[in-house]
Amino acid sequence: MSQEPILVITTGGTVDKQYFDALSEYQIADSVIPKLLATARVAHPFRVIELLRKDSLELTDDDRALIARTIETAPEKRIVITHGSDTMTDTAKAVAAIAGKTVVLCGALSPARFADSDALFNLGMAFACAQSAAPGVWITMSGTVFDGLKVRKDRAAGKFVDL
Amino acid sequence: MSQEPILVITTGGTVDKQYFDALSEYQIADSVIPKLLATARVAHPFRVIELLRKDSLELTDDDRALIARTIETAPEKRIVITHGSDTMTDTAKAVAAIAGKTVVLCGALSPARFADSDALFNLGMAFACAQSAAPGVWITMSGTVFDGLKVRKDRAAGKFVDL
Amino acid sequence: MSQEPILVITTGGTVDKQYFDALSEYQIADSVIPKLLATARVAHPFRVIELLRKDSLELTDDDRALIARTIETAPEKRIVITHGSDTMTDTAKAVAAIAGKTVVLCGALSPARFADSDALFNLGMAFACAQSAAPGVWITMSGTVFDGLKVRKDRAAGKFVDL
Amino acid sequence: MSQEPILVITTGGTVDKQYFDALSEYQIADSVIPKLLATARVAHPFRVIELLRKDSLELTDDDRALIARTIETAPEKRIVITHGSDTMTDTAKAVAAIAGKTVVLCGALSPARFADSDALFNLGMAFACAQSAAPGVWITMSGTVFDGLKVRKDRAAGKFVDL
Repeated sequence: MSQEPILVITTGGTVDKQYFDALSEYQIADSVIPKLLATARVAHPFRVIELLRKDSLELTDDDRALIARTIETAPEKRIVITHGSDTMTDTAKAVAAIAGKTVVLCGALSPARFADSDALFNLGMAFACAQSAAPGVWITMSGTVFDGLKVRKDRAAGKFVDL
Repeated sequence: MSQEPILVITTGGTVDKQYFDALSEYQIADSVIPKLLATARVAHPFRVIELLRKDSLELTDDDRALIARTIETAPEKRIVITHGSDTMTDTAKAVAAIAGKTVVLCGALSPARFADSDALFNLGMAFACAQSAAPGVWITMSGTVFDGLKVRKDRAAGKFVDL
Repeated sequence: MSQEPILVITTGGTVDKQYFDALSEYQIADSVIPKLLATARVAHPFRVIELLRKDSLELTDDDRALIARTIETAPEKRIVITHGSDTMTDTAKAVAAIAGKTVVLCGALSPARFADSDALFNLGMAFACAQSAAPGVWITMSGTVFDGLKVRKDRAAGKFVDL
Repeated sequence: MSQEPILVITTGGTVDKQYFDALSEYQIADSVIPKLLATARVAHPFRVIELLRKDSLELTDDDRALIARTIETAPEKRIVITHGSDTMTDTAKAVAAIAGKTVVLCGALSPARFADSDALFNLGMAFACAQSAAPGVWITMSGTVFDGLKVRKDRAAGKFVDL
């Protein structure tokens, strides 16, 4: 491993949710991911593409095709995608066929703007997995590095588990 | 990768520093690592040994031998050590010869109790690296997964860099 | 002023909102106010009544009568009410006639569980106002101690202003 | 009460302490008070003078005279001073004779940069006390609005108490 650049693609999801008092509800706001990477004092080379700003239940096949195309055309071999947790496994399937790249999906069960969010830990997991793991697709949630095609979200239990 | 348990050994360092008003200074307090892993909503099996509570400039050869022995005698093959950043590379050398285990050192430049600390991210990196990387010793700081024997801390710049 | 006990009545509102991943939305949860007062290291005597758990747009006349009755029957002369900001001024009207008590309403535009919330500041304002101000009803929001009958919420601007 | 401007004078103290990894110690850094007032979404008119940057054990008679002179020459009648807690009562004595102004001292037992600090609450208390209380000197710490001349810090207990 060396200082190979990492591409971070943000797509929205809970991690980026903000509470808007004037609307009495949450909405996905500007991605907090750049701010999290600054808090993490990351000196490793990376760039961020804010590709989408959607709750993952609203992602379409076209959205997933866009994510895949963005990965394929990027020069980077190491990719982190921040994503809503509800359909993270669907996007994992959509990018699994891309050769020669280590792609890691992560997100958060609690918005990053919360004081006690899992966001920063999950992002750290993904950043390391993108550097250490073999090419393929991975999901780093609930403290485990999962094979991206052998995992599911147990919504009631609030965690990711082996398929 | 599966649900192989991770052993987390805490030794002190900046990550665990607390501000004590009565003393008008920061000192290492109860390890905050268990609380960080709860915030991270980690469901992966792990256990924590609070082995030492020292600033890493005060670690002795005996301390390093204790850390090494603790790793060798543990059933776990995947180890995370939280450690002061100043002499992290010395401890990496002390544990590099242990066969068959993936050992990852991490810490923080800002106490975890701070609102904008790098602690949670670095811990996440270590937790993933312990699962993804090959046996050997690693350091996850400043956003990079470093070979534990090929890295140094650039104290003035406040980051870890290749040796 | 001395160590006269303060009664804190919580009624819900944004300040107590929590994000529930399984529901993909924010809802009012257990009041966070006791935890805020602990964080604030409050040694002043107080007690907390969790009276309601509602968004203030859903408060009814019966709810407001309950709040008023709770204040009237309490031994304390100094009252803090945490409340949703949207109808805080309506509740102020409902309690204005209570004699001999200093009643202060406060809340937050951002849930207290957020890292950058105004909740703790507003609660501090109310706690001091309850001790310093004359009997009557007050609202402490947006940094100002308002006469509770001479203020309105400018929802679009996200702040409280003089009527 | 109306929208009378508040003058905030920062002098340093624990509230502004930052941990500097390169030095392995804390130091008083740029005041966080402006950032706290932004987090608090304060719309009330105010200005901030960063007068000193000292631990309060290091304040001299000249420093206290400077604080007093700054208050006397300011157009504002409502003053908040953020200050180290150890000698807050000494500064209260030094400003008690100033006529026609409501002066409130506050600080924090935990640096504001910490996630669980009392800083924001204490600042809120002071901001309200400056608007509600009669002219004179006050101290808002540990949840109580104290007469600034009738209070002391119980260092061992970590709180302010009546004299």
